[in-house]
Amino acid sequence: MINVGLIGYGYWGPNLARNFSEIEGFCMMMVSDLQLGRLKLAQTRYPMVSTTTDFDELIDNPKIDMVAIATPVSTHYQLALKALKAGKHVLVEKPMCANSEQAKHLIDEAASRNLVLMVDHTFVYSGAVRKLKILVESGELGDLYYYDSVRVNLGLFQHDVNVIWDLAVHDIAIMDYLFEQKPKAIQATGTKNLGNHFENISYITMFFDNRFISHIHVNWLSPVKIRRTLVGASQKMVVYDDLDYSEPLKIYDRGIEIGQTTPAIYKMLYSYRWGDMCAPRVDPTETLRVELLDLKDCIEHGTTPSADGQMGLRVVSILEAASASLTDKFKLVELSLSC
Amino acid sequence: MINVGLIGYGYWGPNLARNFSEIEGFCMMMVSDLQLGRLKLAQTRYPMVSTTTDFDELIDNPKIDMVAIATPVSTHYQLALKALKAGKHVLVEKPMCANSEQAKHLIDEAASRNLVLMVDHTFVYSGAVRKLKILVESGELGDLYYYDSVRVNLGLFQHDVNVIWDLAVHDIAIMDYLFEQKPKAIQATGTKNLGNHFENISYITMFFDNRFISHIHVNWLSPVKIRRTLVGASQKMVVYDDLDYSEPLKIYDRGIEIGQTTPAIYKMLYSYRWGDMCAPRVDPTETLRVELLDLKDCIEHGTTPSADGQMGLRVVSILEAASASLTDKFKLVELSLSC
Amino acid sequence: MINVGLIGYGYWGPNLARNFSEIEGFCMMMVSDLQLGRLKLAQTRYPMVSTTTDFDELIDNPKIDMVAIATPVSTHYQLALKALKAGKHVLVEKPMCANSEQAKHLIDEAASRNLVLMVDHTFVYSGAVRKLKILVESGELGDLYYYDSVRVNLGLFQHDVNVIWDLAVHDIAIMDYLFEQKPKAIQATGTKNLGNHFENISYITMFFDNRFISHIHVNWLSPVKIRRTLVGASQKMVVYDDLDYSEPLKIYDRGIEIGQTTPAIYKMLYSYRWGDMCAPRVDPTETLRVELLDLKDCIEHGTTPSADGQMGLRVVSILEAASASLTDKFKLVELSLSC
Amino acid sequence: MINVGLIGYGYWGPNLARNFSEIEGFCMMMVSDLQLGRLKLAQTRYPMVSTTTDFDELIDNPKIDMVAIATPVSTHYQLALKALKAGKHVLVEKPMCANSEQAKHLIDEAASRNLVLMVDHTFVYSGAVRKLKILVESGELGDLYYYDSVRVNLGLFQHDVNVIWDLAVHDIAIMDYLFEQKPKAIQATGTKNLGNHFENISYITMFFDNRFISHIHVNWLSPVKIRRTLVGASQKMVVYDDLDYSEPLKIYDRGIEIGQTTPAIYKMLYSYRWGDMCAPRVDPTETLRVELLDLKDCIEHGTTPSADGQMGLRVVSILEAASASLTDKFKLVELSLSC
Repeated sequence: MINVGLIGYGYWGPNLARNFSEIEGFCMMMVSDLQLGRLKLAQTRYPMVSTTTDFDELIDNPKIDMVAIATPVSTHYQLALKALKAGKHVLVEKPMCANSEQAKHLIDEAASRNLVLMVDHTFVYSGAVRKLKILVESGELGDLYYYDSVRVNLGLFQHDVNVIWDLAVHDIAIMDYLFEQKPKAIQATGTKNLGNHFENISYITMFFDNRFISHIHVNWLSPVKIRRTLVGASQKMVVYDDLDYSEPLKIYDRGIEIGQTTPAIYKMLYSYRWGDMCAPRVDPTETLRVELLDLKDCIEHGTTPSADGQMGLRVVSILEAASASLTDKFKLVELSLSC
Repeated sequence: MINVGLIGYGYWGPNLARNFSEIEGFCMMMVSDLQLGRLKLAQTRYPMVSTTTDFDELIDNPKIDMVAIATPVSTHYQLALKALKAGKHVLVEKPMCANSEQAKHLIDEAASRNLVLMVDHTFVYSGAVRKLKILVESGELGDLYYYDSVRVNLGLFQHDVNVIWDLAVHDIAIMDYLFEQKPKAIQATGTKNLGNHFENISYITMFFDNRFISHIHVNWLSPVKIRRTLVGASQKMVVYDDLDYSEPLKIYDRGIEIGQTTPAIYKMLYSYRWGDMCAPRVDPTETLRVELLDLKDCIEHGTTPSADGQMGLRVVSILEAASASLTDKFKLVELSLSC
Repeated sequence: MINVGLIGYGYWGPNLARNFSEIEGFCMMMVSDLQLGRLKLAQTRYPMVSTTTDFDELIDNPKIDMVAIATPVSTHYQLALKALKAGKHVLVEKPMCANSEQAKHLIDEAASRNLVLMVDHTFVYSGAVRKLKILVESGELGDLYYYDSVRVNLGLFQHDVNVIWDLAVHDIAIMDYLFEQKPKAIQATGTKNLGNHFENISYITMFFDNRFISHIHVNWLSPVKIRRTLVGASQKMVVYDDLDYSEPLKIYDRGIEIGQTTPAIYKMLYSYRWGDMCAPRVDPTETLRVELLDLKDCIEHGTTPSADGQMGLRVVSILEAASASLTDKFKLVELSLSC
Repeated sequence: MINVGLIGYGYWGPNLARNFSEIEGFCMMMVSDLQLGRLKLAQTRYPMVSTTTDFDELIDNPKIDMVAIATPVSTHYQLALKALKAGKHVLVEKPMCANSEQAKHLIDEAASRNLVLMVDHTFVYSGAVRKLKILVESGELGDLYYYDSVRVNLGLFQHDVNVIWDLAVHDIAIMDYLFEQKPKAIQATGTKNLGNHFENISYITMFFDNRFISHIHVNWLSPVKIRRTLVGASQKMVVYDDLDYSEPLKIYDRGIEIGQTTPAIYKMLYSYRWGDMCAPRVDPTETLRVELLDLKDCIEHGTTPSADGQMGLRVVSILEAASASLTDKFKLVELSLSC
């Protein structure tokens, strides 16, 4: 039995609590939050769980094996570090922390103590993304052309990060999971429509080898919610719509081929392939459950989760570079990520 | 009666011919094209029209009052200039020509001869865009935040321009029509997935005063066709989907307001407005017909069309700047457009 | 505090339990089910709740004020009657019971003891349906023409009733809530594709005064899930799509008017009205919560719920008549419902 | 060369004229209509075509080989009979005529003169329906369960027939084409919301052998346009949406199987199959063109078209029976159609 302490019972914490309490092998033992109202809520739903406003009390509790951290980004590093130093396995909300230095520190701390350090990049465990990875790895898509994602909605504004750190983080993690190769350079534009605080719109382009390109559009001020990714490639192309519950993944047997290209401008010949579309069945298990089963497995067997600290570090490094581009006249920023 | 000569009977020419022949006041008199097969097609449909492979014959025909040019971009300038010098009014396909110098020259030529010079920016005349302009001008939307457009499909690859000049040209013209203020700077990314010829994907960001931003995503290699524009603003927001025939325009009474912002980071208060959505009825008249009626009116009364040479010039200037950014490491390019 | 006993913890019971436990004023006290696995599930989620396989133990418990019955239809009457006789208020799953005689008996029993008897016609409390009722009552729609509903999906096959009693029951309750006038006759067709047990497809037409007509299409064997209702009327028309979370209700300012009708057949003049569409904001509160708040209010103040026994009786009477039509060569069956 | 005379240049006639004029082998020679305005329109578009208000002049013209009849239903029989008697091949608008006696007479007349008699059941030639027929005939769908079609829109009200003869005629023809077996009985409900003229809403159920059932919902007063057909079967199920231009046909590998059925009611076991969905590519050729190519082929080789007089007769017989049910208290009407 893995005894779980949960820090943060705001927007996401209750989902973690529900899944921990439903998976055999985990025992929700303690919840910590600064707001008493939230603790009362937790206790109504899980009367056996003890609560506290003092996270140190939770971290220091010797019965607790694993600490889940679902607090604002700016607090991740400090809390995760304390928990690791107290000998606990750690699941930390995405993004892993506020900069790559912190991320490296946490990785080292976990490694030196043989503790599992997992980042809650939930999408990496979704049925659609896992199916997509199988497709990419099978070579069925052919050469990759682009990955284009739109992730927009109205709110929820974050208080300590801009929209890149809040929304683009998902696509950056998904891409890290899907593709072997990592971006070589990044560029971001955006604007702050509501005062001087944080960008609420951003457009990020990432450049890879072999002309593969990716683009992420994130926006907190869209009248409609859109979660749609296009994956272009030479053999097949994919539309992944996370809001389409029945058919999130559509694979199109469509493409274009260039034939003879002669000097004469009008003689370039394109032929279009316009075949069937197939929407494969996707595992409907709740994504967070799949993720926590991986976490359990890693804690029990000392293995490394799909969403490990290294993934968390690469994601934070890309977020850092995107922010750097945004604040330095949208310039191109080179990246050197280790895989 | 305005006698019309049409140069180019490929993809778009037949639409022009059909509309000219259906509007009282125009007389389709002559069609010119380099391919005999196309001329045969024209003559089967319009037996009274004479045809030629020699565009000079058409331009020099003294009975012709107006020349419509529906040929590849690289030929626009030469053909339009000849036609103007022969004293003909000119309707030229978009984009107006291959660079801003050429555009200025055509404007001067038309002005000095009191001839109408119209650019075929068809979307400017669509029922949805005209309704949207009324909305913008009424102030009902409030302060503008962003204009975000996705215009992607599979093909048709152009042979003499990249995807910006082929697809983004539409959004640039629509924005020029909708908004008083013009972009102050532009930045574009993109890639060439199929050989070294032309970019087939591009992402363009334009920067305006007051934090207003616009973004255009164009792609010739998308598995699905998307034509969707989001307009964000402080009071109302709009989704314009050109593929939704019954309700192309949806106006959302949604938004966000920032309340008291105190130093304490958790005390910033956002309140969301989440009201009704309204899809106003939109004039279903074929857009090209509306445009040609404007053209007729301008020729008959010596007035200036909505899509005049100045709009054509501004659009070409923006396309030039976008291309410059694309080839110079995606750098920010400043713009100084006269309104 | 109202102490709740819940009989049946299968498909719907857990939703009742969750809502009862989240509403202040209710106390989930006991759960009864024949399957031990389900009881274990209930206890894991609600450790303070006691469980039993003997529903009599629950009904006889003097601390319990209200019994919620979420069991198969064939058991509703017996369980509800026992509970009422034990002096408990009753919330019974839809349909209320297996025939109208039973329904009348339950109504009398509750009335004689001054107990609240509510039927769990959840849709009657949904934000969209409540908004629709306001529209209908305001007269804004004009004269009613038709109510047309499609409610199809794959499974879940019921074991003791046909598809009418399982799915059409929702639309019949919604109509009972929306419209003052009640159907005068009913007719149903259908088929049994899977053996001799129960109809899995049915089409039901109901006839009202003034040429108002309604039709319900229910199907357990559809490849896709559809929940869409059209309401036709002389002034405005409505599309209610229960699967469209953002805009479930769309009101169209569309219609037709007959002008001069002269004897000459070609001189009949129709004019179409083709105006705006508006999707009003709809209360997003979970429907079951709204319903249980009504239940709480009725128990506390002795008032009558929207979904009372009389509504339950009318719904059962219509279901009976539809079944009679289905088994007697699809004949027209007259109805005389008291409002 | 087949010389064509077209009677009727209202809503559908122009589409026939355009396709006849674009297919090599046909020559549009003459157009007849009672309204001079329409004839002027025809002549503007096709200056080589002669026009007349006297259809006898067209029918008697010895140069004309084939007469296309696109007039109101009530005139079909008289015009088609005259044309056949004058030795012309005939294409007649759907429905073929006003009753089955007339249909039989036309069939005999065409047969005795060796003339082609085709009914303009256009949908039978659509890419989606032809693909669907291949699916049905391949046995891939398994046993047929149901065919369910919704065909509703706002207008266009017909002046001489009710909504069944105007809209359901399409589905009845499609079913006749798709399925070997013919309906054994039919039943129809409906109402007249606008005066006493014709039903503007109708619901039709058809009963086949082996529990196969079909249902058609037609409505002239719907706020939205819907063209959607569900085909249920034991192995695969199909959704055919004629308004979805990119993927009109979706094939779902979904279904249900009944396992052991024991007397105990709770022991019946259903298992659901929930597999992939596939949208096969569909021939995008304009349907009317495909149909007229079949017509040309039949005239040239003396063969029988897919949409021949016998199909026309079966469709009219079903329409007759549906109308009989509608006017006789929605009773079940038996059918005995010869295949």
